[in-house]
Amino acid sequence: MRTYNVAIVGTGAVGQMILNILEEREFPVGGLKLLATKRSAGKTIYFRGEPYIIEETSPDSFEDVEIAMFAGGGASTQFARGAVEKGAIVIDNSSAFRLDPQVPLIVPEVNSHAIDEHHGIISNPNCSTTQMVMALKPLHDAAVIKRVVVSTYQAVSGAGKKAVDELSLQTRNILNENSFETEIFTHQIAFNLIPHIDVFLDNGYSKEEMKMVDETKKILGDDSMGITATAARVPVYTGHAESINIETEKSISAAEARAILSSAPGIKVVDNLEKNRYPMPIDCADSDFVYVGRIREDNSIEKGLNLWVVSDNLRKGAATNAVQIAELVISKNLI
Amino acid sequence: MRTYNVAIVGTGAVGQMILNILEEREFPVGGLKLLATKRSAGKTIYFRGEPYIIEETSPDSFEDVEIAMFAGGGASTQFARGAVEKGAIVIDNSSAFRLDPQVPLIVPEVNSHAIDEHHGIISNPNCSTTQMVMALKPLHDAAVIKRVVVSTYQAVSGAGKKAVDELSLQTRNILNENSFETEIFTHQIAFNLIPHIDVFLDNGYSKEEMKMVDETKKILGDDSMGITATAARVPVYTGHAESINIETEKSISAAEARAILSSAPGIKVVDNLEKNRYPMPIDCADSDFVYVGRIREDNSIEKGLNLWVVSDNLRKGAATNAVQIAELVISKNLI
Repeated sequence: MRTYNVAIVGTGAVGQMILNILEEREFPVGGLKLLATKRSAGKTIYFRGEPYIIEETSPDSFEDVEIAMFAGGGASTQFARGAVEKGAIVIDNSSAFRLDPQVPLIVPEVNSHAIDEHHGIISNPNCSTTQMVMALKPLHDAAVIKRVVVSTYQAVSGAGKKAVDELSLQTRNILNENSFETEIFTHQIAFNLIPHIDVFLDNGYSKEEMKMVDETKKILGDDSMGITATAARVPVYTGHAESINIETEKSISAAEARAILSSAPGIKVVDNLEKNRYPMPIDCADSDFVYVGRIREDNSIEKGLNLWVVSDNLRKGAATNAVQIAELVISKNLI
Repeated sequence: MRTYNVAIVGTGAVGQMILNILEEREFPVGGLKLLATKRSAGKTIYFRGEPYIIEETSPDSFEDVEIAMFAGGGASTQFARGAVEKGAIVIDNSSAFRLDPQVPLIVPEVNSHAIDEHHGIISNPNCSTTQMVMALKPLHDAAVIKRVVVSTYQAVSGAGKKAVDELSLQTRNILNENSFETEIFTHQIAFNLIPHIDVFLDNGYSKEEMKMVDETKKILGDDSMGITATAARVPVYTGHAESINIETEKSISAAEARAILSSAPGIKVVDNLEKNRYPMPIDCADSDFVYVGRIREDNSIEKGLNLWVVSDNLRKGAATNAVQIAELVISKNLI
């Protein structure tokens, strides 16, 4: 079987998860390079039981690399174009290129066709966008979504490993009535809610909120769809939840939506109110599926639905989708 | 000064908070009776430094009571009408009578006029409704709200003292990797989200969600308003948050909305993105105000706004509003 030389750029929460998922899905990794900033260089990480030493990323790192998976952050702007020039296909989890018309923004179950027009860089959407478009696409195909109002409940692991530690440490200190510090988050996150993810823009929205608007339109290929988002951080480790309200052009019942979503790829419907079953972060963490529940007709408009969507933000929201893009690259012979 | 004989029925989280607020606001309490179930009878509670012994509620408990404040739960159905027959005015925090056309449902800043037509029972709205109508009313007056899409992030104290203890104990056990139990909530609440508050109804909505729909229409006196709600429990002790999207008939800018809300009674606008200031539960707990921030125009429709509203669910969401109703009763000479 043909194997591929892969580089992972960034070895934080998402980079590590990409490695896990490459292993889980038996991706045909030949050579493997682990690249990161100087701070992490020299550390050892195991992949398929073999030790790999992290190297500091430089423009020369990408010689002979066929697939470069960037986990996110500043490295993408600094090194992605150079990696393409060296011949690599870049799968990028940062927001740097997502809205670039030259760069496909891919969720394989939703718009795999768009990958064909790539120019070396393929972007992986924002975590909260990916799980939303997974749920919206089958409904859009069936009933044409005109408008989306979404409010998010986002887990701290979206902000990295240190954010996870901050939630644990703050929580413990509050329970023990000790003083505590805030470092990663702007405010206390333990036992609190912060309606602020990424930076604020001039229009009053956070960048996270506008990613959900702009990326969703690009992935669904529909600029006419109205989308508005509110993004909040909640004291949950892993698993973003989204309360999504949609207005459709054609009428669609809750039962029809449930049937459509039940047969959609990558989706699991968990919606049994009699048994108190609905998607929750603790049940969806460590899974690659996007879970949809609380599917019900919105009687405030003629044709609308409410949905509650939960998925593991590090897996389908980041690493799993990135590896699926890599699988698409090889299955379509784009290398 | 004239004083009033007051009975408090229920001595849980809300009943205790009603006592605190009667004291804080120097309500002219003459006689005071503390009534509860047999289980709590005999316990001592202090009010203005004086000890009061809790008595078991019976139909005879309401002799000479002028204002009976029911904290919620089954006691209302059992005893409220009897208390009225004995001559008391009942202020009821349960959902039992809220939608009864004979019963005014009052948020004093919003619809104090409706209290005039009372027949002995006056209902206090659901916590999540009260803070929402406080924010909506000034905007409805200015721009006529046609539709509301709301998603809640509700604190555990709304489910009582035991729920608060459950969050603490579960959290501690999870951090220490010990086993833990769920008793009050249907599922683990620590580091989790539960999109299920109160029971589920045949239409797929929870009773909590339908309270927000039906009570809001009644309080605003507008049956034509479209309202749809999603209610979720979050691991926060006190302070419900709401992500509210409104569509209006008249155009209203974010700046206009901010100005209108800034001068509205009982509201504090906290909306300074440059300084990372927006309402959060930890800042709003222990306050009687309803805090509004993240005010921004919704560009997915012609005339719409997004708001983020937070308030202490035990205070304005329950006890403070109940005491304000009692103040309205005496200022309007309804006794």
